[in-house]
Amino acid sequence: MEDSVTHEDARVPPIEGVAGGGTAYGWTDGRVQFSNLSKGSVDPMKVLTSELVHVWSMPSTANVGHQESPRPLEPVSLLAARNERESLQIALRPKVSWGGSGIAGVVHVQGTDLCSGSGDRLFFGKSITIRHVVPILGVPDALVPIDPLTSVRLFPGETTALWISLDIPSSQSPGQYLGEISITAVKPDKILPAQNFGRIERQKIYGELKGCIDLLDPIEGKPLEEVVERVNSVGSSLRRVLLSPAFSELLSDDGWDDVMEEDAISDLSVRVKLNVTVWDFVLPTTPSLPAVFGISDTVIEDRFGVVHGTDEWYEALEHHFKWILQYKISPYFCRWGDSMRVLTYTSPWPANHPKSEECFSDPRLAAYAIPYTNNNAVSCNSVVEGYLRNEIENLRMKSHWKKAYFYLWDEPLNSEQYNSIRTMASEIHAYAPDARVLTTYYCGPNDAPLAPNAFEAFLKVPKFLRPHTQIYCTSEWVLGNREDLVKDIVAELEPENGEEWWTYVCMGPSDPQPNWHLGMRGTQHRAVMWRVWKEGGTGFLYWGANCYEKATFPSAEIRFRRGLPPGDGVLFYPGEVFSSSKEPVASVRLERILSGLQDFEYLKYYSSKYGRDEGLALLEKTGVYLGPERYTLEHMPVDVMRGEIFATCRS
Amino acid sequence: MEDSVTHEDARVPPIEGVAGGGTAYGWTDGRVQFSNLSKGSVDPMKVLTSELVHVWSMPSTANVGHQESPRPLEPVSLLAARNERESLQIALRPKVSWGGSGIAGVVHVQGTDLCSGSGDRLFFGKSITIRHVVPILGVPDALVPIDPLTSVRLFPGETTALWISLDIPSSQSPGQYLGEISITAVKPDKILPAQNFGRIERQKIYGELKGCIDLLDPIEGKPLEEVVERVNSVGSSLRRVLLSPAFSELLSDDGWDDVMEEDAISDLSVRVKLNVTVWDFVLPTTPSLPAVFGISDTVIEDRFGVVHGTDEWYEALEHHFKWILQYKISPYFCRWGDSMRVLTYTSPWPANHPKSEECFSDPRLAAYAIPYTNNNAVSCNSVVEGYLRNEIENLRMKSHWKKAYFYLWDEPLNSEQYNSIRTMASEIHAYAPDARVLTTYYCGPNDAPLAPNAFEAFLKVPKFLRPHTQIYCTSEWVLGNREDLVKDIVAELEPENGEEWWTYVCMGPSDPQPNWHLGMRGTQHRAVMWRVWKEGGTGFLYWGANCYEKATFPSAEIRFRRGLPPGDGVLFYPGEVFSSSKEPVASVRLERILSGLQDFEYLKYYSSKYGRDEGLALLEKTGVYLGPERYTLEHMPVDVMRGEIFATCRS
Repeated sequence: MEDSVTHEDARVPPIEGVAGGGTAYGWTDGRVQFSNLSKGSVDPMKVLTSELVHVWSMPSTANVGHQESPRPLEPVSLLAARNERESLQIALRPKVSWGGSGIAGVVHVQGTDLCSGSGDRLFFGKSITIRHVVPILGVPDALVPIDPLTSVRLFPGETTALWISLDIPSSQSPGQYLGEISITAVKPDKILPAQNFGRIERQKIYGELKGCIDLLDPIEGKPLEEVVERVNSVGSSLRRVLLSPAFSELLSDDGWDDVMEEDAISDLSVRVKLNVTVWDFVLPTTPSLPAVFGISDTVIEDRFGVVHGTDEWYEALEHHFKWILQYKISPYFCRWGDSMRVLTYTSPWPANHPKSEECFSDPRLAAYAIPYTNNNAVSCNSVVEGYLRNEIENLRMKSHWKKAYFYLWDEPLNSEQYNSIRTMASEIHAYAPDARVLTTYYCGPNDAPLAPNAFEAFLKVPKFLRPHTQIYCTSEWVLGNREDLVKDIVAELEPENGEEWWTYVCMGPSDPQPNWHLGMRGTQHRAVMWRVWKEGGTGFLYWGANCYEKATFPSAEIRFRRGLPPGDGVLFYPGEVFSSSKEPVASVRLERILSGLQDFEYLKYYSSKYGRDEGLALLEKTGVYLGPERYTLEHMPVDVMRGEIFATCRS
Repeated sequence: MEDSVTHEDARVPPIEGVAGGGTAYGWTDGRVQFSNLSKGSVDPMKVLTSELVHVWSMPSTANVGHQESPRPLEPVSLLAARNERESLQIALRPKVSWGGSGIAGVVHVQGTDLCSGSGDRLFFGKSITIRHVVPILGVPDALVPIDPLTSVRLFPGETTALWISLDIPSSQSPGQYLGEISITAVKPDKILPAQNFGRIERQKIYGELKGCIDLLDPIEGKPLEEVVERVNSVGSSLRRVLLSPAFSELLSDDGWDDVMEEDAISDLSVRVKLNVTVWDFVLPTTPSLPAVFGISDTVIEDRFGVVHGTDEWYEALEHHFKWILQYKISPYFCRWGDSMRVLTYTSPWPANHPKSEECFSDPRLAAYAIPYTNNNAVSCNSVVEGYLRNEIENLRMKSHWKKAYFYLWDEPLNSEQYNSIRTMASEIHAYAPDARVLTTYYCGPNDAPLAPNAFEAFLKVPKFLRPHTQIYCTSEWVLGNREDLVKDIVAELEPENGEEWWTYVCMGPSDPQPNWHLGMRGTQHRAVMWRVWKEGGTGFLYWGANCYEKATFPSAEIRFRRGLPPGDGVLFYPGEVFSSSKEPVASVRLERILSGLQDFEYLKYYSSKYGRDEGLALLEKTGVYLGPERYTLEHMPVDVMRGEIFATCRS
C-alpha cells in the first residue's frame, strides 16, 4: 500500500461525528497512487503480512471487541513474579481480504521461547500459551485455546483478539526474557480446501486411478507388447495425477516439515516483541486470601450426563476442582435447597478417603468446605446418621483443619432461617468447638428487626448469630460507595475469639462498582480484589463459577440464567461448546480475578516490608484504587503500581 | 433434547433483570432427564437438524444481529407484484456445538423451486437467491451471496441471518407459489477437511503413486514375468489408494449428484415453508419516482486501480451502472471539486456514442445526468471548447431528453457559489431552453441573507435562482418534524413553468427521522420513500452509494469517511472484500430502499384508482407512516398496507 495509507494505520475507524466535509474527495484529491499489491488477488506468500493485517497489542484489562480500532504496533514489556501469570492481548484486523468465501483471510500464530541473557528459557506452548478471545453476548469473554500453528480466521471489518498468557514457574531464574509472537498471513486454501476443489479434484483423480486399474487388471496372458503399451499408458496417467493441483505443494524438494516451518514464521511475518522481566518475588503457593468459589454439581451432572456418585461423576468433579485451582481459587461444590439452604463440599469423597486427604492437603488450597450432610443427599432432610460426626472426627486433628469451614445457608432472610443455621452450627460445634461456620448475609431477619433501620440491623447480625457463626461474610453491595462503613462492620466482630470478616459480590454491587458482570470494564473486574485488600477482609466468597442455565448435553448452547446480570455466576464455560476439547474455557473475567488475587499478593508483600499504610498510600498515589467508585479505568496505573512494588522490594 | 428444553425454544436469552432467584437450581430441581443425543459427540447425519439449530424467520425490516433471540419457526407468507423483489430473513442459532475447532457447526442451505397449482415455477437459484447477512461495525448490513449448497458456519452463542430474495419476473403468472428452504446440519469435515487430514492424506497418496511410477518406468526390455509381477504390485497399490479415506465417498454406487442431493436435503432437515402470492399488478419498468444516486468514479478508480478513460475504466463504470439499475435507481457518476462543485454524468461515454444511447434509452432509467464538462476533466476549469454544446445538441432531440438533468453544485452556500450556478445554467439554457438544472440546497446564501430568518431565506431560494434551476432539490433535514412546511416550499415553485420539487437525505435528518444510516431501524430505512410519497416530491437524490474512505486495492478494508454518520454515502460494498467475486455486495439498507420504492409504486397504483386522499388515509389507517417521527417500528403494518392494496386493486 502506498505511504499515506501506512501512515494512517493508527487512525481510528469511522465514528459518528459532526466534522462534515467527508464528501470532498474527487477532483482535488491529487494523483492516485497505486498499491504495490498486485492488482486483483493477494498472494500472502509474497506480501508482508503487515500490508494485509493490522497487528497491535492491548493490555489484559482491555475489552477488545470486534469494533476495536487499530493502534501502532509497539514492543510489549511485562513484569512478572515467579508463580505468577501475566497476560496481554494481540489484536488483529484485516487491511485487505485475501481469504475467499466470507472470510478476510487466515493467519498463523506462532511464538518463540523467551530467552534470558544467561540462557534460561520460558517455553512457548508451555509457559506461553495463546487463546482466542470469543465474544459472549457480543462481549469479548471466552478464551478458547488455539494450538500453535493453528490458523486463525479473520473476518472483514472485524477485530480479532488473541490472549497471550505467560506462566512463570516458581523456580524460574529472575532476569529479562526476550522473544516474540509472530503473525503470518497464509493462503486460506492451504488450510481450508474449498469444498468444490476438494471434491471435484478427488473425483477426477479417482476416475484416473480407476482407469489405471482397469488397464492393468486383465494383464495376465497378454502379449508383452500390449502389456508394455498398457503400462506406458498407466505411467502417463499417474504422472498426470501427480501434476494435479492436489499434489502441487509436494512436488518441491523440500520436506514437508520444512514447508510447515517456512509457513509458520517467515520474513513476511509481523513480529510482536516481548520483553518480560521476571523478578525474585515468588507468589506464595497457598494464596494469602482464601477465595472460595462455588461450582454447581447439579450443572455438571446435567450437562455432562454424569450420574451422582458414579466413577464418571467423581472424575468430572475432580477435573473441575483441579482446573479451578490454577486460578488461586479454592473451590467448593454446591447445590441449593429450599430457602437458599445450600449443600457445600470441597471434596466429593468422604473425609477418610485418600482422595480427600490429597485434596485438603493440596498447598494451593486456601480453604475447604465440609458438607453438613452427605453429598449424596437429594434433599436436605436425608441426613445420614452419624455422618457429620464422622467427618469432623476424621478431620479435626489434621494440620489442614485450619482451612476447614462449614457453609450452611446462602443469605438467611428470616428468623426461621437464622434458627436453622443455629441448629446446624450447634451440632457442628458440639463435635468441634473450633469449627468455623461461614454465613453470607446482607441484612438481618426481616420478621424480627434487630434495629430500627436496615443498615443498623445488618450490623447487629454477628451479635444475633454468635456463637453460631465464625466467618461473617457480607455483601459488598451493603456498603454502597461508603467504604467508611467497613469500620462499623468490623467493630461488631470479636477477632480475638476467631471471628473473621469476609465479603462477597453477586448481583450487586452493580456498575460503576467493582464486580464480574459481563460488559464491565477490565479494571472493574480486577478491582474487586483491590477493594478486598483495601477494606481488609480476610477471605472472599463467590457463589458460582459455572451456573449457566440447565442443559443436558456437553456442547449445548450456553444460556445465562434469567434474572441475573449477564456473567453473574458464570466464570468459565464448557469447552465442548467451542471445540472438541473437554477442558473448561476460562473467561477473561476469571483471568482478571487471578490478576486481582496476584495484585493482592503484591500489596501484601509491599505492606509486609513497609507497613499497611504505605500500601494504602501506594494504591492511592498510583490512582489504582481509591474507593468503590474511584479506581483506574485505564491499565497504565496498574503497571505503575506493580513496577513501584518491584522497584522497592526487589532484593 | 428433553421436552422441557424443546418447549423453551421461544424463550428469550439472558437479559439483565431484577427477578432474582436464579441460584435456586439444585436439590429441589427434580430428576435429571438425559438427552437423546448420544453422550459426547454429535453426528448431524443421525440427528434432526432442529435438535441442533434454532431456525426461524424474520421480516426484511428486522436488523438480525448476533444476539437476536430464537422464535418459533412458522411458515412464511409473502405478497409480491410482478417485477417486484420481496425479501425475508431466516435466522439460525446453534443449540449445541458439533463443529469442532471454534465453530458451533456447519449447515447446508438449499431450496426448492416455488410451484403454483397450475404448474408455474419460480426457480430456486434464479428467482430465489440466498445471501448471508454480515455485520458492518457490528450492525447486520452487508449481503454476501452464498451459492446453493454452500456451507454456512455457525458460531457458539451467535445468531446468523440469511437474506432470501424473491424476484418475480414481469411475465410471471399470478397465483400462489409454494416451496421451501431447507437447513441441514452437516459434518464440518465434509466441507472443510481438517488441515492435517488433507495434507497428510495427500502426502501418503503422493508417495504411493510415485512408487507406482518408479515400478513401471524402467519396464521396457524386462522379462514378461517381472513385468506382470510389477504390474500386479502397482494394481494393489492403486486399489489401496482408492480405498483411502480421501475417496471413500466416491466408492458408493450412487452417482456424485445423488450424494450431493442426499446431503443437501434429508429427512433430518429443517424446512421453512414459503407461500408466495404473486398478483397481477406489474411494477412499471420505468420507476415512477426518479431516484438519482451518486456513484463516486474516484472511489472506483482508486480502489480497482482503473485509469480514467481506459477500457477497464469504462467497463468498471458500466458494471456499476448496470448493477445499481436492478434497484430501480438511476445512477449518476460523480466527483467533487472545490467548494462542493460537482461533476456528474450518467453515461461515461460522450452523448453521441452508441453506449450512451443504450444507457439513456434503457427503460429502467428514470433520469440521467449530463456533465457540464468533459468527464475527463481533472479540474473544473479544464472545459473542453464546445463540449457542452455538442452534448446537448446530440441529446435534445431524442425522446429520452425528458429524462435529462444537469446537476452542477452540491449545496451552494454563498453568493459566489450561487453565481457559479447561474453562469453554468445560463450557458446550458442558451443551448437548450428546456434543459433541467438541478440544485440541491438547505439554505440561502449566507453572505446575502434572503430573509430575516433561516427558514424564510431557504424558502426564497427559488425566487433567487429562477430561471437558472428547474429542479429545486431540498434537504429533508430542513423540515424537522414539521411536514406542514412542505406547502410553504411548494408554494414558492412554478410547476406550470416546469419547476419541480425533489428532496434528499444525507447526514441529516438523523434519528428518529427516516434516513439510511447504519444502526437505524429497518422501517426507518424504508420510511424515506414513504415520506417522499406523502410529501409529494417528484424526484429524489442521494449523494453517494459507494463513498467509503480512499483505498487502492479492491479487497482493502472498508472504512467509512470520518465526520459522517456510519453508512452515510455507502449503500453497497466491493465484493472483493467478502469473497473472490467482483460483484458488488448490497447492504440491507439498499434492499430497503428498493422496498420503499416498490411501496411508492403500490401507493401510486392505489391512488390512481381511488385518489391520493385515499392513499394518504391508507398510510395513516395502517399506521405505516404518519409523519417524519411517527411511522411504524414494526413490520406488520407494512404487510397489512400492501395486503389492503392487493385486496382492493386486484383484478
